[in-house]
Amino acid sequence: MKYEYIQQAAYEANMQLPKLGLVLFTFGNVSAVDRNLGVFAIKPSGVPYEELSPEKMVIVDFDANVVAGTLRPSSDTKTHAVLYKHWDAIGGIVHTHSTYATAWAQSLRDIPIYGTTHADHNVADIPCAPPMSDEMIKGDYEYQTGFQIMDCLRKKKLSYQEMEMILVGNHAPFTWGKTAEKAVYNSAVLESVAQMAYLTEQIRQDAPRLKDALIKKHFERKHGPDSYYGQ
Amino acid sequence: MKYEYIQQAAYEANMQLPKLGLVLFTFGNVSAVDRNLGVFAIKPSGVPYEELSPEKMVIVDFDANVVAGTLRPSSDTKTHAVLYKHWDAIGGIVHTHSTYATAWAQSLRDIPIYGTTHADHNVADIPCAPPMSDEMIKGDYEYQTGFQIMDCLRKKKLSYQEMEMILVGNHAPFTWGKTAEKAVYNSAVLESVAQMAYLTEQIRQDAPRLKDALIKKHFERKHGPDSYYGQ
Amino acid sequence: MKYEYIQQAAYEANMQLPKLGLVLFTFGNVSAVDRNLGVFAIKPSGVPYEELSPEKMVIVDFDANVVAGTLRPSSDTKTHAVLYKHWDAIGGIVHTHSTYATAWAQSLRDIPIYGTTHADHNVADIPCAPPMSDEMIKGDYEYQTGFQIMDCLRKKKLSYQEMEMILVGNHAPFTWGKTAEKAVYNSAVLESVAQMAYLTEQIRQDAPRLKDALIKKHFERKHGPDSYYGQ
Amino acid sequence: MKYEYIQQAAYEANMQLPKLGLVLFTFGNVSAVDRNLGVFAIKPSGVPYEELSPEKMVIVDFDANVVAGTLRPSSDTKTHAVLYKHWDAIGGIVHTHSTYATAWAQSLRDIPIYGTTHADHNVADIPCAPPMSDEMIKGDYEYQTGFQIMDCLRKKKLSYQEMEMILVGNHAPFTWGKTAEKAVYNSAVLESVAQMAYLTEQIRQDAPRLKDALIKKHFERKHGPDSYYGQ
Repeated sequence: MKYEYIQQAAYEANMQLPKLGLVLFTFGNVSAVDRNLGVFAIKPSGVPYEELSPEKMVIVDFDANVVAGTLRPSSDTKTHAVLYKHWDAIGGIVHTHSTYATAWAQSLRDIPIYGTTHADHNVADIPCAPPMSDEMIKGDYEYQTGFQIMDCLRKKKLSYQEMEMILVGNHAPFTWGKTAEKAVYNSAVLESVAQMAYLTEQIRQDAPRLKDALIKKHFERKHGPDSYYGQ
Repeated sequence: MKYEYIQQAAYEANMQLPKLGLVLFTFGNVSAVDRNLGVFAIKPSGVPYEELSPEKMVIVDFDANVVAGTLRPSSDTKTHAVLYKHWDAIGGIVHTHSTYATAWAQSLRDIPIYGTTHADHNVADIPCAPPMSDEMIKGDYEYQTGFQIMDCLRKKKLSYQEMEMILVGNHAPFTWGKTAEKAVYNSAVLESVAQMAYLTEQIRQDAPRLKDALIKKHFERKHGPDSYYGQ
Repeated sequence: MKYEYIQQAAYEANMQLPKLGLVLFTFGNVSAVDRNLGVFAIKPSGVPYEELSPEKMVIVDFDANVVAGTLRPSSDTKTHAVLYKHWDAIGGIVHTHSTYATAWAQSLRDIPIYGTTHADHNVADIPCAPPMSDEMIKGDYEYQTGFQIMDCLRKKKLSYQEMEMILVGNHAPFTWGKTAEKAVYNSAVLESVAQMAYLTEQIRQDAPRLKDALIKKHFERKHGPDSYYGQ
Repeated sequence: MKYEYIQQAAYEANMQLPKLGLVLFTFGNVSAVDRNLGVFAIKPSGVPYEELSPEKMVIVDFDANVVAGTLRPSSDTKTHAVLYKHWDAIGGIVHTHSTYATAWAQSLRDIPIYGTTHADHNVADIPCAPPMSDEMIKGDYEYQTGFQIMDCLRKKKLSYQEMEMILVGNHAPFTWGKTAEKAVYNSAVLESVAQMAYLTEQIRQDAPRLKDALIKKHFERKHGPDSYYGQ
């Protein structure tokens, strides 16, 4: 019974992915963490969304060991585990292959900050982590993916609390947040921003990045100490 | 009870935004004005559409003071207030981050008048207001956004009664109309025209603007003194 | 009661347009003809689809005079009348502003025959009629639109029985067929072919047109004397 | 009664096509084989999906002779028959004109392997078979289409068990799999991969193909002897 809360949270967050048009078949997964118990609940691998239920969510610790549950956890479980282990403040993680974000990941480009929709959520370009070395890929691949994500943020001097989304080059996006629900929200925001950035470049090849004053203004009205967005 | 009518109008108009595919999450807001009372009803900030009800619409005067309601109004309230104060003939205002219109706003380009779908509603390119100066942004940002919109129309010699839509550069579209319902209609038209203009340029880079005779004909058959569209 | 049949046919065909995603608001209309009575039933102008009913369809003769009905007919009625008057074999006509077909119309380009989806329905590029002269536009515009359509087919040596769709330059598509239902089918096919042709050119700028043997084969297996498609 | 099982399988798989957005009207068909009986069940030609039922599926042998059923089978039946005859291990075949895959087919290009969504399913570019010679087209066209598909895989040294999808140049995609259900799954995957590859090239014209280590890793985690995806 002690895992019920995070199983419910992970279940509900997973079920949002098809509703938001972010997944085809089983191409995505969400997890929700319990920091006190040191475990997270994650989608079982390859199980269609319509067959999911809260109790099917697999309980895993931060070294990716299955703690409870009869199903095999998502094949991306080790990436989730690494991020939970190193990032104390996150409560949920999402991985999808959503169309536009994945196309940017395949192009190996950061998503430039072209407008306020982007700035409402991030103060910088959304980074694209470079593809891993062949050694990392042949080794413990999903585990290394977690380190590749952390390494990319560090090199770009971005905090995981400010930048809650990333593209993994040649692969697809990961997002996170204080809760699984917030991480799903970030996945939908990323997909929308990715589509708008793509269209912006099609409409004007040399579209300028947003100027600093606007970046600061929009981020702070939602997230700064004097924020005035929401209730 | 005296605000019930505009609360209902604002509520119904807000609920059209997700139905028409114009908003993701809470990225949009509609207001409806009562000219006699000198107030308007507007969406509360950050409240999901599925949780809205007419009585949650916040009542605000033309200086953006909350007159009635327990929730905080939309963060864009000051922009609405400025426009209602200066434009006597409008009854409703809409702000969205709809995908194609926002991509044009991010490209800082006016939407060229390429066809009759556009001319059925506007006789000119849909203007894109330039980004504000850093001083305006750092100052009373949403208030200045209203003036930036009015200033852009003035410089382009467009009347707000003929051109009921605008892009705010680097940001997103605003539309208005005689009623909140008409303003929502205009948002959907803008999004459709923005998509068609984008596709037109992709299909033919040097697509010509619509010729004057057709612009005049189509606008007048819907809006001229001898209009013969509708009942 | 004698118009009931075509009113029902026109009503049902009109209701297909929003279901097939071919119209926003009231941007489209369908008519169905009765050759014996020399009249057609057409959508009333500017009435939302959800408010339509069979008896609201307006009965009009081939000179565009209203014969029965209390509502004003579609503003495009004269175009329908001209085509019914001159083309004996058609039973229905559709006009929409569907997104991709309209973008091609705005680009003033014929849609090249790039594949078998196109060839299953047409043996030639889908023509785009040039914009009318200013005199034609300022005159009886919708009436002249009908002649512009017929003139374009004639110049391209296309029969209206083989080519059941056209783009009106700067404007939008018209389609027709033996029945109103078939004309709606053609509108959906046109939109799909228009989207595929757009994407084909994006993927390969110099994509070749379909070769003659394939054009002939695909058209004939659906429409030739030895056709073997369908029941 | 002995055909009931494959009729049910073919029916259910056919009904997935409109649900997955892979067909407009009747532009697609699925078949399911019974290897013991040497026959397959296939969609009747030109019958709308909403009018289908299991017993309407036509039973055909590997030489394309109708064995049971009162309706005419899909016009593409001979292509299905040829593939079943030569490829022992497949249980289902799908043909659609899905938008993005068809656009690639019309461009006569293989779909480059740009990311892991592709590599999760295929280790190579998705091939586009060249258009057939005029003789093949004028001859037994659908029969030859089957040989054109087999010939293309052979020339590219691809096994039909590893590469379960192909584009037929100027035409549209075919997919197959161990079951009809899996073949439909492959059609949806192909459409998604086709859309992402298109967007990738738009975002970055010189996007690099996925490197070998990643191709191998992703394919093997789903399909290799040590696969760890799914239950």
